[in-house]
Amino acid sequence: MRLLHTMFHIVDEDEALRFFVNGLGLQVDARQEFKAGRFTLILLSTGHPDERVQIELMHHWKKETPYTVGDHFGHLSFAVSDIYDVCRRIKDLGYPIHRPPRDGRMAFVTSPSGITIQLIQAGDPLEPREPWMSMPTTGRW
Amino acid sequence: MRLLHTMFHIVDEDEALRFFVNGLGLQVDARQEFKAGRFTLILLSTGHPDERVQIELMHHWKKETPYTVGDHFGHLSFAVSDIYDVCRRIKDLGYPIHRPPRDGRMAFVTSPSGITIQLIQAGDPLEPREPWMSMPTTGRW
Repeated sequence: MRLLHTMFHIVDEDEALRFFVNGLGLQVDARQEFKAGRFTLILLSTGHPDERVQIELMHHWKKETPYTVGDHFGHLSFAVSDIYDVCRRIKDLGYPIHRPPRDGRMAFVTSPSGITIQLIQAGDPLEPREPWMSMPTTGRW
Repeated sequence: MRLLHTMFHIVDEDEALRFFVNGLGLQVDARQEFKAGRFTLILLSTGHPDERVQIELMHHWKKETPYTVGDHFGHLSFAVSDIYDVCRRIKDLGYPIHRPPRDGRMAFVTSPSGITIQLIQAGDPLEPREPWMSMPTTGRW
């Protein structure tokens, strides 16, 4: 299991990069525009050779009003070796799987206090499998 | 420069550990009660041998009402090789140093959209130095 990134929403990409790169000293590892979804993802890191964890900034193009303090937090992302096992464990404890791993690749859950957690299957996606395959999306995350 | 941890506020420690440890599969690296400050810090990690970044949970004993979604986010924490250099760079860009590194050891700044960033001097604290030594704390973080 690996921690992948912490994601934050931003409104102004230039302003965010000015702070995080020019000010704080992080580096831009990747930047990708998703035209269909109308958002940009920017992956930042410290650049330290032993470090893989990143800070992800997500800019929704249509969002123009600032996020309130706190609401810019998006999620913590973890890579796991068996996404079905982790979702089963969390489900058996009584927590909802908001976005079930229908594709064997990705799921979203939330902690009891509402911290959004993204789960990513490490390596290739698993073969789609019940009960996940036909489980609907529920709630908010 | 290293990313140290992402910090979240929690209200119910047992419930949080049930989710993060029993459910998600993280491990507790450390737990410390600060009686004077009346809070507990819990450091979690994936346990992966190549990973040092942690999730920090902070429980203020007197806090009993739930945090709203988003407000549980505390800060991102980075270790830096020269805390004065980083604070100088951020200050020169026009951003306030909310908690200046008066002790040569720790500072808090916020990104343009209000993401709280903790800076920790790697290794021993630096010798206290002006202008930081006499710079007052400002704003919220």
